[in-house]
Amino acid sequence: MLTHRVDLTTDQIRQIGALVDGRISTHSSVLEQHSHDESAFVPVLPSAVVMVKTTEEVSAVLAFCNLERIPVVAFGAGTALEGHVVPLLGGISLDLSLMDKILDVRPDDLLVRVEAGVHRLALNERLAREGLFFSVDPGADATIGGMCATGAAGTTTVRYGSMRENVMALTAVLADGTIIHVGRETRKLSAGYDLTRLLVGSEGTLAVITEVTLRVFGIPEKMAAAVVRFPNLTNGVAAATAIVKMGIAVARCEFLDSKCIKYLNAYDGLSLKEEPTLFFEFHGTPRGVEEDALSVQEIVREFDGTDFEWTSDEGQRRKLWSARHNSHWATLAAHPGKKSVSTDMAVPLSRLADAVAIAEATLSQHRFPHSILGHVADGNFHCQIITDPEIDGQTEEIRVVVNEITLEIIAMGGTCTGEHGIGAGKIAALVAETGTAAVDVMRSIKLALDVNGILNPGKVFLFDR
Amino acid sequence: MLTHRVDLTTDQIRQIGALVDGRISTHSSVLEQHSHDESAFVPVLPSAVVMVKTTEEVSAVLAFCNLERIPVVAFGAGTALEGHVVPLLGGISLDLSLMDKILDVRPDDLLVRVEAGVHRLALNERLAREGLFFSVDPGADATIGGMCATGAAGTTTVRYGSMRENVMALTAVLADGTIIHVGRETRKLSAGYDLTRLLVGSEGTLAVITEVTLRVFGIPEKMAAAVVRFPNLTNGVAAATAIVKMGIAVARCEFLDSKCIKYLNAYDGLSLKEEPTLFFEFHGTPRGVEEDALSVQEIVREFDGTDFEWTSDEGQRRKLWSARHNSHWATLAAHPGKKSVSTDMAVPLSRLADAVAIAEATLSQHRFPHSILGHVADGNFHCQIITDPEIDGQTEEIRVVVNEITLEIIAMGGTCTGEHGIGAGKIAALVAETGTAAVDVMRSIKLALDVNGILNPGKVFLFDR
Repeated sequence: MLTHRVDLTTDQIRQIGALVDGRISTHSSVLEQHSHDESAFVPVLPSAVVMVKTTEEVSAVLAFCNLERIPVVAFGAGTALEGHVVPLLGGISLDLSLMDKILDVRPDDLLVRVEAGVHRLALNERLAREGLFFSVDPGADATIGGMCATGAAGTTTVRYGSMRENVMALTAVLADGTIIHVGRETRKLSAGYDLTRLLVGSEGTLAVITEVTLRVFGIPEKMAAAVVRFPNLTNGVAAATAIVKMGIAVARCEFLDSKCIKYLNAYDGLSLKEEPTLFFEFHGTPRGVEEDALSVQEIVREFDGTDFEWTSDEGQRRKLWSARHNSHWATLAAHPGKKSVSTDMAVPLSRLADAVAIAEATLSQHRFPHSILGHVADGNFHCQIITDPEIDGQTEEIRVVVNEITLEIIAMGGTCTGEHGIGAGKIAALVAETGTAAVDVMRSIKLALDVNGILNPGKVFLFDR
Repeated sequence: MLTHRVDLTTDQIRQIGALVDGRISTHSSVLEQHSHDESAFVPVLPSAVVMVKTTEEVSAVLAFCNLERIPVVAFGAGTALEGHVVPLLGGISLDLSLMDKILDVRPDDLLVRVEAGVHRLALNERLAREGLFFSVDPGADATIGGMCATGAAGTTTVRYGSMRENVMALTAVLADGTIIHVGRETRKLSAGYDLTRLLVGSEGTLAVITEVTLRVFGIPEKMAAAVVRFPNLTNGVAAATAIVKMGIAVARCEFLDSKCIKYLNAYDGLSLKEEPTLFFEFHGTPRGVEEDALSVQEIVREFDGTDFEWTSDEGQRRKLWSARHNSHWATLAAHPGKKSVSTDMAVPLSRLADAVAIAEATLSQHRFPHSILGHVADGNFHCQIITDPEIDGQTEEIRVVVNEITLEIIAMGGTCTGEHGIGAGKIAALVAETGTAAVDVMRSIKLALDVNGILNPGKVFLFDR
């Protein structure tokens, strides 16, 4: 396993350049762009950035780096939140953003095949022409490859699933350059080990994903959104879990505290009341949507939900969800020059109100500005905590508080990450959560597939315990 | 890796017995019962059968067998269809059927935790008391552990998913006796490699599953079933795929050819017209179910579907699906003394009509009685081919024909197995489907986790290529 920073020699740069038509750069602005993601982790410059255009190029570059023991970090849009793409040991940042072709749209099979560098919004623009959509929607306009690698989810997971449920097949390149095709373009598959699900969420540590077949859905006949206010956070969360328990098939159900709403109002020009709020979306037939909305309205009333407003106006609906997706940037815009540490805990539904209360109570004991929002119908919530990178040690201080909350969440049966992944930030939390024996199994698999440890070293787990 | 049959010494039997309070047997009837599954594979006797009661016992037995290089085949209900539980190299059959406790039913979290030996029907009986149900329903009353190991699915997969989507967490024991806990009781999880999905479908070759947390659902307010006849197989299949493409959320959509219907009539005392037929089920609110049924009725009419009969009578509905689940035994009952070879192919939806036609045309060139049925809304179908075990070489002859069909299905983008798994029967088909490189990755993982190859040797892939 690699343990020290690797800088490429001039000769190595020349040799890799020859494999990719010269698309290798050591320009400082390019290195800087590939040194960080959206998190508050300290940036680390790669030694070089390689732009690839084909699976075969990825294979050639990996085979070379494997022989030369050069670390390789795959890079998509750089929107991860746990330092996933920070090249901790230097080496190369392997940028897949030129692999942005939508290869095959198949409405009859409700699937699409894309290169890993395709962005989710571009994909949905193309799919809309066929009356289709791809459901997984993290806030950022991430690449599909990056979303696979982190096992991304979003606001529609409660209805349509996360990447885990929507990736059907993958082409990927192993550390030694071997190209593998895993999964199948069929709805059901039971053929051998589920390597697709092993690679989804493996955070670039087992292989570099180059092509993806995704399940897509027909755009529902009718979509409507609704907004409800609550007197406090607990009632809002309790209402959401009651709705899920009743089996109402909401397409989206998002909680935002009053501070989130304030940031969204300022950033997206909304004028929502600054109170704890649930955003809903309903998908279906006109009658079905109306029936679901009425049931939800009844339930939220029992939890003192007020001002139930709903709209099936497409412009208003889009504006609401675009604002929700911007919450990370809205929060940063409200705190110029600062960064955000985002938690990502999830608990069994019955523990959600308690979990959110614990997070809120712990954070309130500290001086850092924070807000809470979440995919509450899935039991998944985020605390966005503001840190000042100019103040020495502040981010570390926040991480200590977050760790304290995380351990409480784990103790109540929860997880340290519902959708952001482990990256460099939750390596200890993963051990606390799943135990040394299970993490050792992950390490064994890593060692079996990436003998020299060149792929994204320092993420998910460490070897030097 | 083990390559030859292992028979236990008297001393080994005594030592294993001491680990499990004497629950080890070499009685011929017990050995015979553990020598086969529901497939037509030639039975192989284990050297001994060990009945375990706890995860700790499984751990102790595996640690011993690993040191002594004794093959271990986990055994649940013995209802697999590809020879999964046949102990090809002798050793012990590890019977988990005494581990039949339902440990925790949590209606508020819509989950249940069970020991691996719990049967699916017993689980559903218990869940019904809480207004809940567990959705995955292979024909047989399999154990939950076995269903995890084979990645089982069933008639409701189109709506509720297969084991892959409904297993939340597992306790499992590795070959060396290490106990691991993987997954989490949360709806969303992105914490490290998805070991849960790696074990689901690994067919007892990576670990022995001892406890399972499953997602369960509230019993829908309204359920209704419908039956429609078609002039031919192609129209029936085409109607089913059109329904899926329209986005109608059917809960079940099963195709049965006229021979299947004939067998069910005889076995379950039904009096259905012996024509190609679709069985449907709808789940939801009373209005939603009615709306769905009306939409389906309109679509099937376009494909010359006739005699659309629907019922929301609970007794009739149950009788219909109980008959469907019995189809394997109904087919055997119609052919006394014979066995059945069941295929399990799946294709992208748009290719289903072609795939079924290819299967039917190829089988029609041979003299073996056969029938076709399938989970057509998932693109998954089965041919049940009757073989006479008394006639030397007949089963092998059938396997040659099946292989011919399988290769055609793979060439059109399909899979050799949607839900039955690879077992001993589809080892070559797996390589044809996913390629040597991906199978090599599976082998590497196997070698990393089961160094001595004691767990279910001879299944999924071979080592002596």
